[in-house]
Amino acid sequence: MTSTAMIEAAAARLKGHARLTPLLSSPFLNEIAGRRVLVKPECLQHTGSFKFRGAWSAVSALDPDTRRRGVIAFSSGNHAQGVALAARAHGAPAVIIMPEDAPRMKIDNTRALGAEVVLYDRKNGEDRDAIGRQHAETRGLTLIKPFDEPQVIAGQGTVGLEIAKQAAEQGVEAAEVLVCCGGGGLTSGVALALEAHALRMRARPVEPEGFDDVARSLSAGDIVSNAAPSGSICDAIVTPQPGEITFPILSRLCGPGLAVSDEEALRAMALAFSRLKIVLEPGGAVALAAALFRPDQIEGETVIAVATGGNVDAEMFQKAMASAE
Amino acid sequence: MTSTAMIEAAAARLKGHARLTPLLSSPFLNEIAGRRVLVKPECLQHTGSFKFRGAWSAVSALDPDTRRRGVIAFSSGNHAQGVALAARAHGAPAVIIMPEDAPRMKIDNTRALGAEVVLYDRKNGEDRDAIGRQHAETRGLTLIKPFDEPQVIAGQGTVGLEIAKQAAEQGVEAAEVLVCCGGGGLTSGVALALEAHALRMRARPVEPEGFDDVARSLSAGDIVSNAAPSGSICDAIVTPQPGEITFPILSRLCGPGLAVSDEEALRAMALAFSRLKIVLEPGGAVALAAALFRPDQIEGETVIAVATGGNVDAEMFQKAMASAE
Repeated sequence: MTSTAMIEAAAARLKGHARLTPLLSSPFLNEIAGRRVLVKPECLQHTGSFKFRGAWSAVSALDPDTRRRGVIAFSSGNHAQGVALAARAHGAPAVIIMPEDAPRMKIDNTRALGAEVVLYDRKNGEDRDAIGRQHAETRGLTLIKPFDEPQVIAGQGTVGLEIAKQAAEQGVEAAEVLVCCGGGGLTSGVALALEAHALRMRARPVEPEGFDDVARSLSAGDIVSNAAPSGSICDAIVTPQPGEITFPILSRLCGPGLAVSDEEALRAMALAFSRLKIVLEPGGAVALAAALFRPDQIEGETVIAVATGGNVDAEMFQKAMASAE
Repeated sequence: MTSTAMIEAAAARLKGHARLTPLLSSPFLNEIAGRRVLVKPECLQHTGSFKFRGAWSAVSALDPDTRRRGVIAFSSGNHAQGVALAARAHGAPAVIIMPEDAPRMKIDNTRALGAEVVLYDRKNGEDRDAIGRQHAETRGLTLIKPFDEPQVIAGQGTVGLEIAKQAAEQGVEAAEVLVCCGGGGLTSGVALALEAHALRMRARPVEPEGFDDVARSLSAGDIVSNAAPSGSICDAIVTPQPGEITFPILSRLCGPGLAVSDEEALRAMALAFSRLKIVLEPGGAVALAAALFRPDQIEGETVIAVATGGNVDAEMFQKAMASAE
């Protein structure tokens, strides 16, 4: 289990390596939301998403001999790039298992960050786990899971430590903290950090409508799954269900989940472009969308939205900008 | 004259009000440039550009009685928004004189930030200065010039203080610091800060090709003007000539100026989008463009580019993204 002490230890290992992202705001966003809005732009993190924090935390926590043999991850997206860069910086080999129909740019970026990319054919039913297991066993690689892994959760929790400190510097002690939520690694880490360092703040997961497994699991009191495996432009945060490790943390500490439409995510991207000058991907914009467009479901004078990632192509970004017209 | 002590005093007045922007980087940009590239994203500053710093410095330096009567500025762009927000935060009235054919959004934004916008008809030869003088005299307003004003230069110089400190934290002591340059307020402020705090760093102005009055003035050793008043998409940094106060500072401290094409500015915007997840306007991207596309004109292992602003509309941004395809 991830403890507060583990988050603080992760913060010490990340210092000087992860980027201390600022806390942004705009009077124009405050006006839309009807309350003060603060945004933590993790799109500015190395590799364009918060995933670098968890990856660094996990890789840096390995004992040197284990690390020297290398790490392996399954990901077609932000986790892949986070693990690739964190491993390279530690001089550790990284193998990333990706579907061969993943976007070319994501494959290229992951390779450019020094990882060995192993492609598998998901359409013809190649068994990703078997391929990964084979590489891991043959070469002694350590699997870095994307969210259901205590040291990954500890790394993501450093976002919560920074929010508590930076908000206090701006005079904010109480707030709801909205977090774009897939498997719950970031949300649970942030919730643990806030429990320890900002008693008057509460984390709440935000998901795409139709893929709100975490919100429904929280309200059912048990893990439930999404009906469909995919179908939202917020692909980075669509996961089948909350994690075995993350769910008990979310359940104990988080407020009710929120869900927004794809169109609202696009409008939030457009406002982040025009008012904050940051680039968000759809899945990285749902927390801001909820902060802006779900005022009646939020309590208090201040809302803090974690903008989790910015790995979006020009075509989708153009679609977002057009949504504001 | 702006002194180092004035910059440090401005930094103290700005503390907690101006945003401490991070220093960004990407291995992909390093590869293009052939050296380490660090980017200071002032697009993330309040109102979307560094201009807020100089405006805050100038407004906060006024004695309370003078400030209470209010301030006035001539600007159709970033300086207008910076002065409007800085004045509002001080409870001071702000009058901004803008051409009536300025982009609607800039006029609306400036008003939304609490300023009284006075429009004049520049096409029919209305005398902007006479209108401004009349308002200033009748109401006792203090003019905040955009660059040729010691307290404005001191405020912009805080960018240089932060660069010196943040680069040192990343182990960088020596670098050329490229600055998008209009009248030279930011460039001269940064140059003064570096002289005091980073002896192995040197500021260099970057301008759009055809509007390189500062570069040519530096090489002539005297102030020379641009041939045309406008005609670059980098409109935010097109000024007729360097300032009377800024030029002697630039001349004493800066390395040779650089110039880039509009197309290069657009390509730098596209790379800032894809690799740094920030939004730049063309005039705010010329320093990054020079860092990436003028490697032979730059010395040393590290180059630092100040990305000065991000106030760009969706149409121009789309054009930039298309330039990368």
